[in-house]
Amino acid sequence: MDTTRLNRLQQAMSRAGLDAVFITNPKNVNYYSGFHTSMPGEVQSVGDPEGFVVAYKGEVHLLCDGRYIAGAQELKGVSPHRIDSPTTPKVVSDGIRAIIGDGRKTIGFEPDAMLYSDALGMLECLSDMQMKPAGDLLSEIRTIKSTAEVDLIREAQKITGACFDHVVKQIRVGVSERDIAFEIDTYLRRHSEGSSFSPIVAFGETSSRPHYGPDASRKLEKDQLVLLDFGAVHQGYCGDMTRMVVMGKATQRHKEVYELVLQAQLRCLNGIKPGMASQEVDALCRDYFREKGCVEAFMHGTGHGVGLAIHENPRIKPTFQQRIAPGMVFTVEPGLYYPGWGGVRIEDMVAITESGYENLTTTPKSLLELSA
Amino acid sequence: MDTTRLNRLQQAMSRAGLDAVFITNPKNVNYYSGFHTSMPGEVQSVGDPEGFVVAYKGEVHLLCDGRYIAGAQELKGVSPHRIDSPTTPKVVSDGIRAIIGDGRKTIGFEPDAMLYSDALGMLECLSDMQMKPAGDLLSEIRTIKSTAEVDLIREAQKITGACFDHVVKQIRVGVSERDIAFEIDTYLRRHSEGSSFSPIVAFGETSSRPHYGPDASRKLEKDQLVLLDFGAVHQGYCGDMTRMVVMGKATQRHKEVYELVLQAQLRCLNGIKPGMASQEVDALCRDYFREKGCVEAFMHGTGHGVGLAIHENPRIKPTFQQRIAPGMVFTVEPGLYYPGWGGVRIEDMVAITESGYENLTTTPKSLLELSA
Repeated sequence: MDTTRLNRLQQAMSRAGLDAVFITNPKNVNYYSGFHTSMPGEVQSVGDPEGFVVAYKGEVHLLCDGRYIAGAQELKGVSPHRIDSPTTPKVVSDGIRAIIGDGRKTIGFEPDAMLYSDALGMLECLSDMQMKPAGDLLSEIRTIKSTAEVDLIREAQKITGACFDHVVKQIRVGVSERDIAFEIDTYLRRHSEGSSFSPIVAFGETSSRPHYGPDASRKLEKDQLVLLDFGAVHQGYCGDMTRMVVMGKATQRHKEVYELVLQAQLRCLNGIKPGMASQEVDALCRDYFREKGCVEAFMHGTGHGVGLAIHENPRIKPTFQQRIAPGMVFTVEPGLYYPGWGGVRIEDMVAITESGYENLTTTPKSLLELSA
Repeated sequence: MDTTRLNRLQQAMSRAGLDAVFITNPKNVNYYSGFHTSMPGEVQSVGDPEGFVVAYKGEVHLLCDGRYIAGAQELKGVSPHRIDSPTTPKVVSDGIRAIIGDGRKTIGFEPDAMLYSDALGMLECLSDMQMKPAGDLLSEIRTIKSTAEVDLIREAQKITGACFDHVVKQIRVGVSERDIAFEIDTYLRRHSEGSSFSPIVAFGETSSRPHYGPDASRKLEKDQLVLLDFGAVHQGYCGDMTRMVVMGKATQRHKEVYELVLQAQLRCLNGIKPGMASQEVDALCRDYFREKGCVEAFMHGTGHGVGLAIHENPRIKPTFQQRIAPGMVFTVEPGLYYPGWGGVRIEDMVAITESGYENLTTTPKSLLELSA
């Protein structure tokens, strides 16, 4: 158990008037207890959990059923509690009561990391307690990374860059999108804990879909644009990078669109300073595209926080007002997308410092033309 | 869009008095619309969805934001609707209203496939509608597989068996659990859509943890027991199988525990008939272990349904009473676990027929002793 995190959690709990916090998001469980879950996503169901954390009086308790209790028992500074299987709202609620004892307490929980049906059941079982949403409190602490965490993310991004160098050599006319995605994923599994998300590989016009899934039947053609978006996982922390290459010679339009996106990204990177609102960071890209008359083709936010989760706060988009602060890590990834033609995205990841930022991505950003 | 599924859905909606159903579980979205999501898990958040289905008057509508709309537009028999980004409960609710029109309607939704916070937001935005839980209705239809679906699962299980034959050849003294898990996963990515869940590979005493994650530092020793639990994905459908091997000679205790588990599994397989309750199927294994005085070491249910999801209904466990019916596919996987020593599990997958069942798993079940 990381005592700095625990101290920050205790302070935040005290400010929010919480006696205890019930933690369900697998990433938060990992962050506050060191218990690694193999669960994808950001929610654990009460009926089939790996482990729930209860933070109470400066101690971290882990509730697991028989399948996971041995792993919980190995953690330092964490109290393991075996709960009965099948796990139900009643079983889990009783597990919480066994830790916090009798009397009415104020318990924080995660409304965005519990299923609706589970939350209804738990709130009923704990109706004598005061239950308060605490998801924001838990994720806000995670938003500010320690030096050690930034080191892990830098390493994840370094492996991501090495993967790009490797995979570029595999790109040739006739390979399929799926072949290249497979190559990326296999590299990342060999050199890290695997992909931080399903790699996006798009040839030609499919690059106009920001979240495209690679197709085994789409084979690379000469002079096609290739979008590659992927990341490694290193000790639980995610990398994330997007680069473009052309299989042969870039057309004039390839170059024009690429240059617009690159200039938008550079303008944004040059403008980032701690203290700005995240929507102001987004505006650096968006206003540039607006000036150039192509903002309609920019159909997503400028970036997102990265850490144990591939998407976390701060969100860098028009509707998000979080203050950018030292220790935050997020992507800067403007893109322009033209259905029927294709799309261009360039994505780096930055760590905010006291005076500005460090770009954790060192892979060059010139539009690479591959010789056939 | 599969018209048989749609007909069954319409009938179920009519029986439940639903005008429309709002579908959020990615597996259900896939099943009822053919839209493939890359999202892991069984819940999509309103803030970052790939696609939501609205079934209304025998038609299937798909709500997607700009990132996914192009994929939705390619589906046959599905009406795509682009919704604004950022997606909020208001945006999604307005999307539903645009489909179902004015007037008070009864809308089914999935309480176990929505986040608590999202459901609260949506219920508020749709407070003039009558909202009814419909998750069970949607998943019950999926529980009964068509012949075509059983064919896909049989193929997934066949690839899983071929993977076992392949990986057994890679097992030797000195390899790590992680090496073998990597080998399994790489094979499955080459020969299928990948692993249906993170492969479980446990050497010696770690096999006593039913849901163990493979460790890079645990190297295989002579005469150790090896547990392998994994599955392929074929056209979205999951395989699942567990087999045991010994690196060298099995000890007397290895053989005794293995024989107990094998006999429990055979007794269960011999007893399965359509019409039984799922808890009766579980009891076939559990009562055998009870007779033999080792039921305490059987710390999970006998099995679980498999289909588009790796875990679905019917659950084969003491607390589950679903009637076993033709078209159901589930695992039969008794195990005995002794912390500090190790564990044995044997897992097959069966498809229930009119007269009994077909075992979709053809990999032999003798305890394999590998020569060093």
